[in-house]
Amino acid sequence: MQRVWTTEIGRHVGERVRLAGWLHRLRQLRNVSFLILRDGKGLAQIVVEDPALVGQLAGLHPESVLAVEGTVITGTQAASGYEIHQPCVEVLSPAVAPPPCEMFRPALKVQLPMLLDHAPVALRHPRQRALFQMAAATMSGFRTTLKAHGFVEIQTPKIVGSATEGGANVFAIDYFGRQAYLAQSPQFYKQIMVGVFERVFEVGPVFRAEPHDTPRHLSEYVSLDVEMGFIQDHTTVMAMLTEVVRGMVEGLREEAQGALELLKVVVPEVPSPIPVLHFAEAQELIFRQTGEDARNEPDLAPAHERWLGEWALRQHGSEFLFVTGYPMVKRPFYTHPDPERPQYSNSFDLLFRGLELVTGGQRLHRYADYLSALAARGLNPEPFASYLEAFQYGMPPHGGFAIGLERWVARLVDAQNIRETTLFPRDMQRLTP
Amino acid sequence: MQRVWTTEIGRHVGERVRLAGWLHRLRQLRNVSFLILRDGKGLAQIVVEDPALVGQLAGLHPESVLAVEGTVITGTQAASGYEIHQPCVEVLSPAVAPPPCEMFRPALKVQLPMLLDHAPVALRHPRQRALFQMAAATMSGFRTTLKAHGFVEIQTPKIVGSATEGGANVFAIDYFGRQAYLAQSPQFYKQIMVGVFERVFEVGPVFRAEPHDTPRHLSEYVSLDVEMGFIQDHTTVMAMLTEVVRGMVEGLREEAQGALELLKVVVPEVPSPIPVLHFAEAQELIFRQTGEDARNEPDLAPAHERWLGEWALRQHGSEFLFVTGYPMVKRPFYTHPDPERPQYSNSFDLLFRGLELVTGGQRLHRYADYLSALAARGLNPEPFASYLEAFQYGMPPHGGFAIGLERWVARLVDAQNIRETTLFPRDMQRLTP
Repeated sequence: MQRVWTTEIGRHVGERVRLAGWLHRLRQLRNVSFLILRDGKGLAQIVVEDPALVGQLAGLHPESVLAVEGTVITGTQAASGYEIHQPCVEVLSPAVAPPPCEMFRPALKVQLPMLLDHAPVALRHPRQRALFQMAAATMSGFRTTLKAHGFVEIQTPKIVGSATEGGANVFAIDYFGRQAYLAQSPQFYKQIMVGVFERVFEVGPVFRAEPHDTPRHLSEYVSLDVEMGFIQDHTTVMAMLTEVVRGMVEGLREEAQGALELLKVVVPEVPSPIPVLHFAEAQELIFRQTGEDARNEPDLAPAHERWLGEWALRQHGSEFLFVTGYPMVKRPFYTHPDPERPQYSNSFDLLFRGLELVTGGQRLHRYADYLSALAARGLNPEPFASYLEAFQYGMPPHGGFAIGLERWVARLVDAQNIRETTLFPRDMQRLTP
Repeated sequence: MQRVWTTEIGRHVGERVRLAGWLHRLRQLRNVSFLILRDGKGLAQIVVEDPALVGQLAGLHPESVLAVEGTVITGTQAASGYEIHQPCVEVLSPAVAPPPCEMFRPALKVQLPMLLDHAPVALRHPRQRALFQMAAATMSGFRTTLKAHGFVEIQTPKIVGSATEGGANVFAIDYFGRQAYLAQSPQFYKQIMVGVFERVFEVGPVFRAEPHDTPRHLSEYVSLDVEMGFIQDHTTVMAMLTEVVRGMVEGLREEAQGALELLKVVVPEVPSPIPVLHFAEAQELIFRQTGEDARNEPDLAPAHERWLGEWALRQHGSEFLFVTGYPMVKRPFYTHPDPERPQYSNSFDLLFRGLELVTGGQRLHRYADYLSALAARGLNPEPFASYLEAFQYGMPPHGGFAIGLERWVARLVDAQNIRETTLFPRDMQRLTP
């Protein structure tokens, strides 16, 4: 008999079906027992009346893998509205020990380190896996939107020859006896690819040797990267980003509805347009309304980002806020200055619920400007030679952005620690699982 | 005026349009000149009659970035059937030197090392970028097919704690003063995720410290990975792989038609079903028909794979051939043996045009079998502890496969060297661009 998913049994009322999955829970009552079977998509309640079968199931550890044939009954008190009666059960693969956490609970009652140590089991819990259904749906919405706008997907190398972009916080590799590095971002490659396809995106790992053990830092995360040519300035990029975020939200609604319901996620509205504040305006506003004078700071403090998030919600009813024009001194060398006020940049951060979700901006596109920018920072152009080649041979005005996938999901579910929404996190301490 | 793509001008006959792109070629004839403009999607021919404008364009290096406004004329001799007349040209970003290869030629006439050294420019050539349009379309078809079959996309870590899977050929990283490694494949993680979603896939980089400088070896490539639970045996996986390959071909037809035409790619038919030979049968067949006796070899030689490819084409009219049942000694420890003939495995290779394109099979799923398999190979189970945890707590019969993206495109275009179809290849010598 063809196996069906637990989520499909409503189409088979009155029929015998074959389910397969994990022994999520066995609830033994006086006259009847309930076997909750979990498969890759959901749960099914199976009514067990045969005492011999109850005894057999009670002898199994939770997480044992079963196949169950039974008749689908409707109008029951099961959460789904359907139950399986008259089951025959086959044990496909018994668990050899009780699992390290009580998987039947609505939410796993364990501390984060325990959750991460036992991820191979803990991720099976419906609430845990819902987080990564959200991640998958986000990637899907991201790609769909970009493809609809003519962007081409690329995969760029993660092993790079020089630790150029950031300088610090880069992992070194022994590369056939030479030193190589792990890419901190696909920045240089996606810019080069603007010369090829004009519009490109990449979904892939980025690596940061961040020597910080905090709830925000990871050594490796998934970056959703975009770069586009023939822009007017950074505002063209911001308009595309707005479409992309809208597509990510749409992806969640279309492909992770069950996960959103289970986790009670309130999906944000993406306003048209998203409100915008210039960095200098933001500093002025904070000063006028809170009395805190950070007008000489080159960046926004996390507390001020949160304050701006609340301000945007209060003032514009928006959970998103663009802050533009960050000072050039805090942005990387390839950042395009604001032609009117060259101490400020044609860059932006997108704040979502008071935290930076996206960083982006317009890049320099003229070869001579790159040489000047490198010289102004005292950087030798030699290690940048093949990156610079793209600019020697004609590059249009262009820009782009990068979205942290784990951070996006973390904001949506209000996670306190980025590790909660990272599949197998890597940090200063953690290399397994 | 809104800019349009070169590929869209046919919708604007008789109208003024704005194009933007790169100076691909300037052909100066006696009475008229032709400016070929290349944008991210195609080429447009612009008729230049004004001598002053011809002079200005002749003073620019190829690859300079231009915006062109002009009137779309149909019924011309241009390849597309459309031309732009009465152009106004704006130079957005001049190239500062002549490009290192003659971009106007139908195919770049340079040797591979030169092509790779100058990839930031060479990739702009229509034939070069067509290869990566094919790669993008393949990824798209791969994902679409798998999502339609209920697979969930995952992104697993590339930094791993122990060099477990293959042992040799692994890159070491300095990880905050400790030793870590680059993942040779997502194998362990995709198997763990079968316990979570049952059906998962990943598109991402894999790393092999292959000390071989050959046309087939790369240090980093893009792997299309799939794993699925609740299979009968490896034949369930082969049936899914057949669907996936069909989806990849469909992706090419739908999203890379122009690239296929330009490169004159003959897209393969995927037969239903793909012919299958057992490893032992394949050896017998080779012996009977060629006289070469390799019946005691534990693997197929490349020459024999080619011979089998020709045999499948001759005998079955198929460019694909499954070879199943490779000897256990040549397969990794997690491979499931053939229950009837335990010296052979429930594994397969998919040959495409005489080369191995995909490797896959059924994996062990019982905890005790893993302990035995590790012991039989003299491996300490301790470094595998978190991988093994998945099997302690109930795993269904499962299996999967991995497709090399660059290799697939290489076979389609009959490339002699895998580097030709790799965006920015990494090998023993090459770390840039």
